[in-house]
Amino acid sequence: MLKIAVDCMGGDYAPLEIVKGCVLAAKELGYKIYLVGDKNRIYQILETSGEKDNPLLEIVHAEEKIEMNDPPSNVLRKKNSSLYVAAMLVRKGEADGLVSAGNTGAVLAVGKFIVGAEEEVERPAIGVALPNPKGKTVLIDVGANVDCKPRHLVQFAVMGHTYAQEILGIKNPRVGILSIGEEEGKGNELVKETYPLLKNTKLNFKGNAEGRDIYSGTFDVIVCDGFVGNVILKASESLGFAVVHLIKEEIKNSWLAKLGTLLLMPVLNNFKKKADFAEYGGIPLLGAKKPVIITHGRANAKAIKNAVRVAGKFLNTSFNKKLVENLKALIPEGEKV
Amino acid sequence: MLKIAVDCMGGDYAPLEIVKGCVLAAKELGYKIYLVGDKNRIYQILETSGEKDNPLLEIVHAEEKIEMNDPPSNVLRKKNSSLYVAAMLVRKGEADGLVSAGNTGAVLAVGKFIVGAEEEVERPAIGVALPNPKGKTVLIDVGANVDCKPRHLVQFAVMGHTYAQEILGIKNPRVGILSIGEEEGKGNELVKETYPLLKNTKLNFKGNAEGRDIYSGTFDVIVCDGFVGNVILKASESLGFAVVHLIKEEIKNSWLAKLGTLLLMPVLNNFKKKADFAEYGGIPLLGAKKPVIITHGRANAKAIKNAVRVAGKFLNTSFNKKLVENLKALIPEGEKV
Repeated sequence: MLKIAVDCMGGDYAPLEIVKGCVLAAKELGYKIYLVGDKNRIYQILETSGEKDNPLLEIVHAEEKIEMNDPPSNVLRKKNSSLYVAAMLVRKGEADGLVSAGNTGAVLAVGKFIVGAEEEVERPAIGVALPNPKGKTVLIDVGANVDCKPRHLVQFAVMGHTYAQEILGIKNPRVGILSIGEEEGKGNELVKETYPLLKNTKLNFKGNAEGRDIYSGTFDVIVCDGFVGNVILKASESLGFAVVHLIKEEIKNSWLAKLGTLLLMPVLNNFKKKADFAEYGGIPLLGAKKPVIITHGRANAKAIKNAVRVAGKFLNTSFNKKLVENLKALIPEGEKV
Repeated sequence: MLKIAVDCMGGDYAPLEIVKGCVLAAKELGYKIYLVGDKNRIYQILETSGEKDNPLLEIVHAEEKIEMNDPPSNVLRKKNSSLYVAAMLVRKGEADGLVSAGNTGAVLAVGKFIVGAEEEVERPAIGVALPNPKGKTVLIDVGANVDCKPRHLVQFAVMGHTYAQEILGIKNPRVGILSIGEEEGKGNELVKETYPLLKNTKLNFKGNAEGRDIYSGTFDVIVCDGFVGNVILKASESLGFAVVHLIKEEIKNSWLAKLGTLLLMPVLNNFKKKADFAEYGGIPLLGAKKPVIITHGRANAKAIKNAVRVAGKFLNTSFNKKLVENLKALIPEGEKV
């Protein structure tokens, strides 16, 4: 049976929504869940939910918690925090994966240093599957590694390829490197140096991708350094908010528009479902020894349940085994780390 | 009287929409327009529009044109192209500004090397005013300079500040540097090195901005290198397309949703107006000796007219004079180029 450690104290709606998400995960997925955090508060919520005797739900006490503004350097010192304790369960092999809605930098820190990197992986990276009109595009790295070397980007490409293949079911993922211009030779120094290395791998490398390709579906995997990926991801999210706000402002003063919106609700809800992070649950730190799933700080119960499901999918598809095989098989000897 | 040179052969709808845009500009703005390109084709369009005798519209013949895939290196050799000839009119002082819907790399090349950089400016940069719920945020650079040094970003900040003040009318623009984390010390090497320099200027520097701040209105100016800015700009645009596509797909199968959309049309059109590049016309290459306005490749007549209007605004506000003053006054001696 799969066992997932969930940091119950991280996130805007912790512990209530997190614990509720654990309950959903145990019920719907049948996994064993370690609920890590303040045992009294967690117990209370389980009791109210009538789940205190569910054998799939096991509380693991942790005195402290990581705050949203705790710097990553603090995180590794706060050994009694729920996040650290949860990560240690994974490190010791008691749990098979980790889910947290806490401070992303903190989750990254325990992912890299407590759970640790998989064999052959130099730097774990965050891959996110973004929606496009035809399916999904994996953007990697979106924030785990700020200043990267070309060989890191080559590894990210293989991680993204493996993610697209094993998790998204894309047979022969088309891989691109994010740049500003289609032709070889366009881009910054990092891109220009990485391009020939990627060309030399056995990946289905299609050359430079541009910003517009991120949401167009012309690539299945787009590689970039974590600085660029992070600002794109956050800018996209804020663009969504700004658009919704501007449209709401316009609607406010018109009865007809309000009626129109009402009629459109089913469509908008369907669309929201496609774009909503709560539906896909969480973003994986690829290349960690065991699944480390980072969910949005605003994660609700459903998002947590789906994050546990994502962790399970990584385990059930033997993602890491495939990743190590791919790193060995797809990157030529001379380019290996 | 202001005189603007318009490259009539660049852009997806050239020359028809470009020439029509010139006609609108002459009529509505009263500027003298040099229509640069194939004299026969331009004349025909003017004749059909009943404008062949308008003294504000003067055709300047150019044999060749820049293709969308012409590399920038070709551009400076194609001296008979409409773009090059238009840029030369500006260089020689016959025109006061340049508008082109052609290949952005090509417009940048003539902007930098034919029109040239203003006194004190080391590298002209593209600043774009992006919408947010409260107004506009200037993102600079969005593609003119790929690999940047800290002192370039400091200059971009002053350019963005001047743009926000003179063109957008923001009194004391809040300036940020794009990074991945709010606190000083977060970011990549370039950001970490630039931060103290910006802190040391007389700008209203508010520290690190994150991706989410681009569309939130918490900053008036956000500085980044041209690689990062370009991918963000293009990703944002493609996200917009993807969202519209996904919603359209959802609407297709529902009569109620179709009716709802119909009722919402006035609102959506208002919104489109706010977001539509055709409305604001063009993006300036800041720091060039004279206004160089780059419009979208898909520019229609209205976009061209508005781009001419933007060029006029830069001239009427004595933007360059203010920019040079600001570069001298706001950056401390030791940090100057």
